[in-house]
Amino acid sequence: MARYIAPSTRQAVRAVLFDVFGTVVDWRTGIASAVASFADRHRLTLDPEAFADAWRSQYQPSMERVRSGMRPYVSLDLLHRENLDPVLREQGVDPAAIPPGELAALADAWHFLPPWPDSVAGILALKRDFIVGPLSNGNTALLVDMAKGAGLGWDVILGSDVSRAYKPSPDAYLAPVGLLGLEPGEVMLVAAHNADLASARKVGLATGYVPRRAELGPHQHRNLAPTADWDVLAESITDLAGRLAPTPE
Amino acid sequence: MARYIAPSTRQAVRAVLFDVFGTVVDWRTGIASAVASFADRHRLTLDPEAFADAWRSQYQPSMERVRSGMRPYVSLDLLHRENLDPVLREQGVDPAAIPPGELAALADAWHFLPPWPDSVAGILALKRDFIVGPLSNGNTALLVDMAKGAGLGWDVILGSDVSRAYKPSPDAYLAPVGLLGLEPGEVMLVAAHNADLASARKVGLATGYVPRRAELGPHQHRNLAPTADWDVLAESITDLAGRLAPTPE
Repeated sequence: MARYIAPSTRQAVRAVLFDVFGTVVDWRTGIASAVASFADRHRLTLDPEAFADAWRSQYQPSMERVRSGMRPYVSLDLLHRENLDPVLREQGVDPAAIPPGELAALADAWHFLPPWPDSVAGILALKRDFIVGPLSNGNTALLVDMAKGAGLGWDVILGSDVSRAYKPSPDAYLAPVGLLGLEPGEVMLVAAHNADLASARKVGLATGYVPRRAELGPHQHRNLAPTADWDVLAESITDLAGRLAPTPE
Repeated sequence: MARYIAPSTRQAVRAVLFDVFGTVVDWRTGIASAVASFADRHRLTLDPEAFADAWRSQYQPSMERVRSGMRPYVSLDLLHRENLDPVLREQGVDPAAIPPGELAALADAWHFLPPWPDSVAGILALKRDFIVGPLSNGNTALLVDMAKGAGLGWDVILGSDVSRAYKPSPDAYLAPVGLLGLEPGEVMLVAAHNADLASARKVGLATGYVPRRAELGPHQHRNLAPTADWDVLAESITDLAGRLAPTPE
C-alpha cells in the first residue's frame, strides 16, 4: 500500500475523529464472546460468530429506516435491541422465552467491545496534537461505556443522538464538526471502510484509512485496501499517529 | 463545615458532572492575565481584575435574553465576544479602534483558563469510578479547548450548544443526563455555587458542593459556605473524590 500524506492535510487538521465499529473496536469478537456466554447460560446451541454476523447484518437496514425518514431518529441502542429478536428467531430461539433483562444485557454487549491492539496507544498518541473523538453511529451512552471499558482516551464524545443522524447522512459528519467550532477540512475521519470515507470526503472532511482485514472474520473480501486516494493511508492507528505527528523544524 | 455523604448517594451516582467557570477553573485570574497582555500590547491603561469582573457581570444578563426567549440560542463564545464591546467602552476604549482579530483573540481567553490546584487530580481520581464531564454554560468547542489546555481528563463533553439551553433552565441539566442514558438521580452536579446546585436538585440531580472562596477575588462574600444540605460537602475536588470513592467491603 502506498504511504503518503499531503503536507497541507497535516497542517490543516485539528481534530481526528474515528469510525468506531470495526475501525477502533473488534465488534465481531466482542459480540461472539457475549453470545457464547449467553448461549451457555441459557443452554442454547448457537454459532457465536454466525450470530454476530447475522446481528450486524440488520445494522444498515435498521438505520436506513431512520435515514430515509420512515421512522424518526431512535438510538442505536434501541436498534440493537430490536434487531436481536429476529436474529434469535432465525436461530430457532423464541425471544419471548428469555427474560427481558437478559436480552437487554446481551444487547448491552455493544457497549463493551474490545479495541484492536493498536487503538488505545494510537488514540493517545494523536491526542497530544489533535482533538480526538469518535464519529460513530453509536449513541453517546454506548460510546462513553465503550471508552471507559476499553480505555479509549477520547477528548470529546458526540454520539449519533447528538446529531440525530446516521452516517452516511451529511449531518452525521457536519454536526460534530460544527460543535467543535471547526471547518470540515479541519476534521479528519479515520475509518476502515471506504464508503464511510467517501461520504466524509463528499462533505469536505479530510480522510484517513486504516485496514482491518479481519473485521468480518477470516474470509473478509471487502475493505481490504483503499479504493481511493484518501489523504492518509496507514497500516494501523499508531502508524497513522506517526504520519500525522508534526515534524520538528 | 459538616462533612457528610449519604451512603445511598454514593451508590446511586454513576456520573459526576461539574460546573466549570469558578468551580473547575479560575476564570478571574485567567481573564485578568489575558487582559493585562492585551492592554500591554495596545498600550492601554486597564485594571485587569476590574475588567474581568465587568466582563463577567455581563454573563448572566446576556444568557437571560436566551433563557427568556428574547433571542434564540447563541453560543457562549458569541456572548463573550459581544459582551466585550460595552466593557471596553466603559473603560474608555473604542472597540472599533482595535483590529477585530485582536478582539476575537481576547474573547478566546475564556477557552484557556487555569484550573484550581486540585481540579486536574480530583477529576482524574473520580474518573476511576464515575463518568466525569462538565455541565457548563460553555459551548463544546470552548470546553474542549479548555480541557486540552488545562489537562482536564473528562470522559465526555456536552456543551450548552448540545442542549441549546443555559443553566438554570431545566433542559441544561436534563439534556446531558438523557444523552448519558441515566436517570437524574444517577448524576451529581458539583458546583461552588449554591444557586446552581439548587436548580440541579430541583430537577432531581444529586449535588456536591466545593467552596471556591477566592473565585471573585479577595473580597468575595457570596458562596463562601453551603446554604443547604447538599448530598456531599467537600473542601476541594480531590476531597470530593475521596468521599465518593467506593469503600472496600
